[in-house]
Amino acid sequence: MAGVLQRIGVELPIIQAPMAGVSTPQMAAAVTEAGALGSIGVAATDAAGARKMIEAARSLTSGPFNVNVFCHRPASADPEREAAWLARLRPVFARYGAEPPTGLREIYRTFLADPAMVDLLVETRPAVVSFHFGLPSAAVIGRLKGAGIVLLSSATNLAEAEAGVAAGVDAIVAQGYEAGGHRGVFDPEAPDPRLGVLALTRLLARKIPRPVIAAGAIMDGAGVAAVLDLGAEAAQLGTAFIGCPESSADNFFREALFGPGAAATEMTALVSGRLARSLPNRFTALKDAELKGAAVPDYPITYDAGKALAAAAKARGEGGYGAQWAGQGAPLARAMPAGELVATLARELAAARQR
Amino acid sequence: MAGVLQRIGVELPIIQAPMAGVSTPQMAAAVTEAGALGSIGVAATDAAGARKMIEAARSLTSGPFNVNVFCHRPASADPEREAAWLARLRPVFARYGAEPPTGLREIYRTFLADPAMVDLLVETRPAVVSFHFGLPSAAVIGRLKGAGIVLLSSATNLAEAEAGVAAGVDAIVAQGYEAGGHRGVFDPEAPDPRLGVLALTRLLARKIPRPVIAAGAIMDGAGVAAVLDLGAEAAQLGTAFIGCPESSADNFFREALFGPGAAATEMTALVSGRLARSLPNRFTALKDAELKGAAVPDYPITYDAGKALAAAAKARGEGGYGAQWAGQGAPLARAMPAGELVATLARELAAARQR
Repeated sequence: MAGVLQRIGVELPIIQAPMAGVSTPQMAAAVTEAGALGSIGVAATDAAGARKMIEAARSLTSGPFNVNVFCHRPASADPEREAAWLARLRPVFARYGAEPPTGLREIYRTFLADPAMVDLLVETRPAVVSFHFGLPSAAVIGRLKGAGIVLLSSATNLAEAEAGVAAGVDAIVAQGYEAGGHRGVFDPEAPDPRLGVLALTRLLARKIPRPVIAAGAIMDGAGVAAVLDLGAEAAQLGTAFIGCPESSADNFFREALFGPGAAATEMTALVSGRLARSLPNRFTALKDAELKGAAVPDYPITYDAGKALAAAAKARGEGGYGAQWAGQGAPLARAMPAGELVATLARELAAARQR
Repeated sequence: MAGVLQRIGVELPIIQAPMAGVSTPQMAAAVTEAGALGSIGVAATDAAGARKMIEAARSLTSGPFNVNVFCHRPASADPEREAAWLARLRPVFARYGAEPPTGLREIYRTFLADPAMVDLLVETRPAVVSFHFGLPSAAVIGRLKGAGIVLLSSATNLAEAEAGVAAGVDAIVAQGYEAGGHRGVFDPEAPDPRLGVLALTRLLARKIPRPVIAAGAIMDGAGVAAVLDLGAEAAQLGTAFIGCPESSADNFFREALFGPGAAATEMTALVSGRLARSLPNRFTALKDAELKGAAVPDYPITYDAGKALAAAAKARGEGGYGAQWAGQGAPLARAMPAGELVATLARELAAARQR
């Protein structure tokens, strides 16, 4: 079971998590240049946008990086539910002198129905491609593997990890319940045992015949050392990188990250239509009143409304409706350049391993 | 910040969790004799019962052990809610040819209102006393400390840990959301950020001036090594010991522990009146129908009904209504004598630390 990072020449057992909307080609390149694996998330763009991001990263590093795609089932439109949702949001928009949109669209295409994105990846051959929310078809996996791309898939339980192994991926990203951003469960309707990263990483390390990459609440070298002890090949850190200057998080997000809400992240589906771990903010607070009990439209149809609301409020100086994803490690976030953070993590890891 | 285990002569950084109803004086003694810290839980008995347990443990070991008490606020009776609860349970009792009790009692006294238990502890001086669900008064803490007893208190977040430090306890048990049994939140009505053990342990190790003991989903030496890397002084394991012959878990519980439900533990308040992580069983399944939406009486008033139902069903051969607490690590449970398990954990820990 050779390590996948070793195979592609990454020296440190550290992956910067792909965070669509927060990570950037600059961040990915800085991380890769510092000896870890940088990532970009292309779930919020199309093949043309992804091409630009890949080219931007390549202009900054000749090293390997990871491109992450979302493999959810295509959204199912439900005009009635969507109209009801917008009606609930109308008074919130009104607070910022705005109207909700008249209708909602599936603003991002799933990778499962995006042949142009597949073609782009096969053509540009990033060192690593990672799947979230599920797995593409055997044909697509075959094409990506044929292009020499290392494949990762996320799992929140043993069954999802076994599905990744059966599909032929090279390593499994064990996403603990602590992790920030979208929870990668394949079927959003299925019961979720909400496994923590320690339980999940150890379970997968013991039960599946592939390397495991642990994700969730890992913020420093001690956290990296801990998951290596659990049998992980590497740690994937997202929240740790939000405060970096290379991140595209806005100032409202950064302030929230370093504020008291960091201790009380919560899972919400209200922003995008799928559960994601977020800093508590004005949007998540809508659960207690304006959106209480409302039927949530599909991902990413809900996100169309969420982004419109965030933009309307921000135009009036209220930044608390943005997608401020963060994991349970948020209280330990640091603000430093991504390359410096990687060097710091490496030093801390070495110190932890010497004890 | 000297380690508390060192102070009392415990050689291994391992504590067997006090599990009222599952751990036994025999288990505690076997663990202590093997070089870790054994524990008994006396939350489900009174001072006379606790005395017997302490004497039984002392007859088997001259080493240190931990006595755990529950520090919840006294139950608040609500005859209407309790009558409604029993009415909901009536058809479930009927399935086993039984009637629900005519009324419910606060079957266990909280340590906060149990001066006889305080006197017993001061008199018998166990090496360690640990608090769950909260903290006793300064006067009680003063008496216990005056008797030379090392004190631990549980915390599920930073504020609870800080309260323990302010009260003068010697170390904090960081109980992750993964942990089996009763979730130790001080205020069951307050929002719970559900911190995983990795996030919580690292946060407390970084932020509080006391040793931290990590609890939740730790099942083997790799797990122990992981939490030590996070800065914990020791790991507390409960679920790992359920399968030991010294445990008082019945065969139904053991079968469930080693069955498929181990992968899907869930938090339920239906059994006792407080949230506890349980194997899925007939009792937890009542949430979907018989007890759906019902107002749950206070802890431990609810437990009175739960125990009556478990007994009625068991009398007819149905063991699926017992309190089958287990943590998210359950799929990695092993059945071996407690002393042998401690020796195995020690070997695994040494191996993990050498890598």
